[in-house]
Amino acid sequence: MPKVVDRRQRRLELVEATWRIIARRGISSATMRQIAAEAGFANGALKPYFSSKAELIEATYAFVFDRTNRRVDVAAEGLEGLAALEAFSREVLPLDEDRLDEARVVISFWQEAAHDPRAAELNNTSMAEWRRSMATWMGQAREAGRLDPAVDIPAACDVLLNFMLGAQISAVMDPGTTTAGDLRRQLDSQLGRLRASG
Amino acid sequence: MPKVVDRRQRRLELVEATWRIIARRGISSATMRQIAAEAGFANGALKPYFSSKAELIEATYAFVFDRTNRRVDVAAEGLEGLAALEAFSREVLPLDEDRLDEARVVISFWQEAAHDPRAAELNNTSMAEWRRSMATWMGQAREAGRLDPAVDIPAACDVLLNFMLGAQISAVMDPGTTTAGDLRRQLDSQLGRLRASG
Repeated sequence: MPKVVDRRQRRLELVEATWRIIARRGISSATMRQIAAEAGFANGALKPYFSSKAELIEATYAFVFDRTNRRVDVAAEGLEGLAALEAFSREVLPLDEDRLDEARVVISFWQEAAHDPRAAELNNTSMAEWRRSMATWMGQAREAGRLDPAVDIPAACDVLLNFMLGAQISAVMDPGTTTAGDLRRQLDSQLGRLRASG
Repeated sequence: MPKVVDRRQRRLELVEATWRIIARRGISSATMRQIAAEAGFANGALKPYFSSKAELIEATYAFVFDRTNRRVDVAAEGLEGLAALEAFSREVLPLDEDRLDEARVVISFWQEAAHDPRAAELNNTSMAEWRRSMATWMGQAREAGRLDPAVDIPAACDVLLNFMLGAQISAVMDPGTTTAGDLRRQLDSQLGRLRASG
């Protein structure tokens, strides 16, 4: 079915073009005209793939969550306990230019989701999944005697998640002050506090 | 000089109206017409106070930082060490509806600052001040033998700041999952880790 493959590929190209524009120039620059130009489409040729700008923007935000989750799956594969938690956290933190671009798009998404229940729902579903994974890995560490007995797992998941969300803000706002090295050290100190001593 | 007082008062009214609109309906609803209506001004009567929408939005964002900082000054007055740090953190965290509205405006600000160096500068100056205050209070706790000797003060300031920024996101996106009680417990666990034992 070449037509289906073609349609899926074209939609992906448009989503990636939208993602690049939001990351580099902001949501206000993401007009249908700019997106068509960035993706190498004729102006007006987007309609068969996305019937409205809102639909394209929504697909772009879903794509960014998906992209992070795929990277997490690869990084955490075959790992468990605190090693899996660390691999996950390193994929979520904006430790390179590509993930800084993801963070820029996510900040734009948060702004929209603050007043759009559907977008908030997409966010909250993803965050619930992340919390569940984190709790599973901490539970494995506890089983293996590797987790500090004082750790309250649900609260520790929330603290680590909030830290990682805030890190996106700090790194995007001021990449000179919040470097990848800083974020790695901050993560190490957070994970160190979870570990059983001795 | 009644005219100067009047002008300052009118500007404040417009900034507060803008703040309410961004918090409740989002930045895309903050048109000059909507702001005039919310503030009880005739349409077009804003020009003597703010020459452009950009200027008004910028003043609104500065107002939100200012508002938080004034609350912090009151809350931390006469306190030092970890008590001051706790009072500060409780003013920054979105623990009530008013501070949730502040968080909504700040999220809108971050989205703009991700692509506007002047706005990013306002953010970074405020965050540098907050880091300095936090480091001063942790230093006082260290002097008094109240800080865990293992704490690296600059890194601990960054971790706590990132946690508080992320908490704004979580609470705005999903206030049912991230309640004020949850945030207080998360803060307590973070501050507990800073305290010297015994």
